[in-house]
Amino acid sequence: MDVSALRQKCEAAGQTHLLQFWDGLNETEQAALAAEIEHTDLAEAHDFFLSAQETMAEADEKIDEHLEPLESAVCGSVARTSPEQLTKYWDLGLSAVSKSEVAVLLLAGGQGTRLGVAYPKGMYDVGLPSGRTLYQIQAERILKLQRLAEAAHGKQCSIPWYIMTSEHTKEATEKFFSSHNHFGLSQENVMLFEQSLLPCFDFDGKIILETKSKMALAPAGNGGLYKALRDRGVLEDLSKRGIKSVHVYCVDNILVKMADPVFIGFCLSKGAECGAKVVEKTMPKEAVGVVCKVSNKYQVVEYSEITLRTAEKRAHDGRLLFNAGNICNHFFTTDFLHKVCLKENESLLKHHVAKKKIPFVDSDGQQQKPTTPNGIKMEKFVFDVFQFAQNFGVWEVLREDEFSPLKNAEGQPKDTPTVCRHALMSLHHRYILAAGGRFTHSDGSPYPDIQSNNNISQNGSNGQQSHEEEETIVCEISPLVSYSGEGLEEIVKGKSFTPPTVIDLDPTTLGTVISQNGSN
Amino acid sequence: MDVSALRQKCEAAGQTHLLQFWDGLNETEQAALAAEIEHTDLAEAHDFFLSAQETMAEADEKIDEHLEPLESAVCGSVARTSPEQLTKYWDLGLSAVSKSEVAVLLLAGGQGTRLGVAYPKGMYDVGLPSGRTLYQIQAERILKLQRLAEAAHGKQCSIPWYIMTSEHTKEATEKFFSSHNHFGLSQENVMLFEQSLLPCFDFDGKIILETKSKMALAPAGNGGLYKALRDRGVLEDLSKRGIKSVHVYCVDNILVKMADPVFIGFCLSKGAECGAKVVEKTMPKEAVGVVCKVSNKYQVVEYSEITLRTAEKRAHDGRLLFNAGNICNHFFTTDFLHKVCLKENESLLKHHVAKKKIPFVDSDGQQQKPTTPNGIKMEKFVFDVFQFAQNFGVWEVLREDEFSPLKNAEGQPKDTPTVCRHALMSLHHRYILAAGGRFTHSDGSPYPDIQSNNNISQNGSNGQQSHEEEETIVCEISPLVSYSGEGLEEIVKGKSFTPPTVIDLDPTTLGTVISQNGSN
Repeated sequence: MDVSALRQKCEAAGQTHLLQFWDGLNETEQAALAAEIEHTDLAEAHDFFLSAQETMAEADEKIDEHLEPLESAVCGSVARTSPEQLTKYWDLGLSAVSKSEVAVLLLAGGQGTRLGVAYPKGMYDVGLPSGRTLYQIQAERILKLQRLAEAAHGKQCSIPWYIMTSEHTKEATEKFFSSHNHFGLSQENVMLFEQSLLPCFDFDGKIILETKSKMALAPAGNGGLYKALRDRGVLEDLSKRGIKSVHVYCVDNILVKMADPVFIGFCLSKGAECGAKVVEKTMPKEAVGVVCKVSNKYQVVEYSEITLRTAEKRAHDGRLLFNAGNICNHFFTTDFLHKVCLKENESLLKHHVAKKKIPFVDSDGQQQKPTTPNGIKMEKFVFDVFQFAQNFGVWEVLREDEFSPLKNAEGQPKDTPTVCRHALMSLHHRYILAAGGRFTHSDGSPYPDIQSNNNISQNGSNGQQSHEEEETIVCEISPLVSYSGEGLEEIVKGKSFTPPTVIDLDPTTLGTVISQNGSN
Repeated sequence: MDVSALRQKCEAAGQTHLLQFWDGLNETEQAALAAEIEHTDLAEAHDFFLSAQETMAEADEKIDEHLEPLESAVCGSVARTSPEQLTKYWDLGLSAVSKSEVAVLLLAGGQGTRLGVAYPKGMYDVGLPSGRTLYQIQAERILKLQRLAEAAHGKQCSIPWYIMTSEHTKEATEKFFSSHNHFGLSQENVMLFEQSLLPCFDFDGKIILETKSKMALAPAGNGGLYKALRDRGVLEDLSKRGIKSVHVYCVDNILVKMADPVFIGFCLSKGAECGAKVVEKTMPKEAVGVVCKVSNKYQVVEYSEITLRTAEKRAHDGRLLFNAGNICNHFFTTDFLHKVCLKENESLLKHHVAKKKIPFVDSDGQQQKPTTPNGIKMEKFVFDVFQFAQNFGVWEVLREDEFSPLKNAEGQPKDTPTVCRHALMSLHHRYILAAGGRFTHSDGSPYPDIQSNNNISQNGSNGQQSHEEEETIVCEISPLVSYSGEGLEEIVKGKSFTPPTVIDLDPTTLGTVISQNGSN
């Protein structure tokens, strides 16, 4: 073990304290710490800290006066687009899929801390009748979209799925996909790659030791994507496969439409090199980032970066002026990814700073859990590359159709497994109604289309309870049966269903199997 | 006791079973039952039952094809109205208030069953720093508005407050107001009146006996208002006082703007005899009634009366076509109330039917609590008089500014005391920011204007937690200091506050008192 080289490296970066317990470590611990130090660019990390300090100093400055609304030419909205035009977008997107020119890229490096689980979020079962996990839902949507494209264009195609994990999630994710046979996808089309970690610093610029032989490390934010694309060979793979469009998304949105042909088609028809799918922000105080322009560059501005006065501004139509709520659903051309991953561009992306309570060892070697923030994590955000886009596209979709993120444990007011499950079942309920199906109780009496317990203001309209409460209709449609509501008429039209209702696909016959209350 | 007369009355209405336990009752019980039967128009009630049966048969029929959107000429929206025009409405409304031409009328006959309390909802303390109840908040808003009108127009005025209670709420409400000295309002301007009760029927048209000596009775819905206005002398009182405009609202909305001059001014400028304040319904499945036209008459259509297909219809601007969500905030001219309370009009209002589980005595005289609905309650709705309006006005306001109803006990997902408290504190927080105040932690560091925990999609924008969680800012402004944000600049501009912050009015000096963290 060449301790002097380690010591030199640490000294050069002002981090000699990393070796303060060296002599008391056993060989295994020494080897682990040495490896960590060798694999970390301490000088670069410290440079990051210095510029992060500047960012922090600016953090309380608001950027209100630099905000500009999006030009209407780059915007589109599913609610303000004719069915005919929506079909054109769909066809355009599906055509690209059929040529195997579209890939999806999943950001799955985060831990499920707030959800209260020790495994990756994608493995979570939100309690659907089928027991599907988020990963299974997403895999089957890809598979179904491939089949739709193949059926429409008469040739085989594939949608490669790139999954960015981190040290925290890589092993479990790999095992999960293997043990589930990649949910029917070809193994060579499911590619995991790992984002790198960055040391956490205390406020004085010293890397925090989590134990005597281990630095405190954290994923470098989902914006670590670009370094990882470059370092892990993903860019080459995209080019090798002839991929032209990439749909990037976060793992936790149960309603995410993988490689959504409408979104892809919209971006392609706009000639956008970069695009964002958004939902309308309707309340000024909603803590969501908004897509807008700042000093003539596209950017996501976080709720903490603006004043309420700016958040409350309204356009003539009464909508909020800055209402393009970011839901982490992005479109990139492969060319654009190559451009932003160039080291001179990627290094322009600033680190955002989050003050955190980071466990550390004190000078006696005892681990401490601080009760107030004692250090910072540095992160890049995936959307920070918007600044490099010349041609941009913003596609507004309906929240109830496309956005329900799993973030919190049961019992919290929002973004819980129950909320996600209900969002998905409610969407599937609407698919079935739209296709001409109906729901009845076991005594034959009909369910109302709109249930009282899905509401915001239960009986708000008359101030007194006028109906017995209805339960949420439990129904689920396999993604293998329908990607976004299509193809259901022949299965459900004119039929009545008694929940719980599950419409599934028989894996061998590929015929539809409907199970419901009383039958199975 | 003239039993034979009772028996005759019951026989004539087909309700002889009411006297089945007569001989076994003691004298007090006999007297109570006799009084109930004497005071109830059994024949009329049974007629109601018969027509309610027809209504029930129609209940599953949807009225989709008869729905028409509102004409834009009757609609206005706070978000699409210029500040100058809003000021004009305010001035017009305040002028009417200053002439003592405006009254408020509170619907407070319901019980707090779902809230889990045995007393009227208005007495509920949602946990504000001041401990204010809903009744106190509402009383003080009236008082403040009187003072604003007096200051603007240099003459004394009053806003009479009519409170419709029921058998369930009358006594407790009276005592509460007395013991609090009517919260500073003149006693002669606070008038309680009682709505009548209707018997509950079983499905065969027999009145349900709750005990051996007591019928099952329920308030006749908030639409029982019109009969009560006529029978309790309220119409005469309105005329005697020279009231021209009446603002009707439900007790449970903590943000309700009593006699809102903007709403009154809007309705007056439209020449409306009847108006509704609404919030935008943004999701098709939201279970809220919508104001629209049906067969050329204004009506609130309940979510259960339409199909999802109709609920999902959108206008060219992308908004839902039927989006005027009813929040039980109505404007009526006194003339209009006189018209609709005419017996020939009031009797045209249909009873809505709610199937309920109603406790009853079995043939052995034992009380039973059914587990499935065994009978019906008949209700009229306050908005059913919209059909008589020739000139109508619909005023859309922002949900976060004006609507947060208290309906459910803590622990439910919506409409809980905590949700209401946060809605009010969030509004007051915005008032203070808009007036130039700021909030800082006790160490002097600023709070962001928008807190992460007020959000719908916490950190939805980047998928990773980037800020330590902020607590909701605890702040409260006495209604006696500001009715809707006005007059705060001189108190807060350029100042920093450390929550919890309460801005109150000293009752003797009428000066402002600010208490906050560390001072009191």
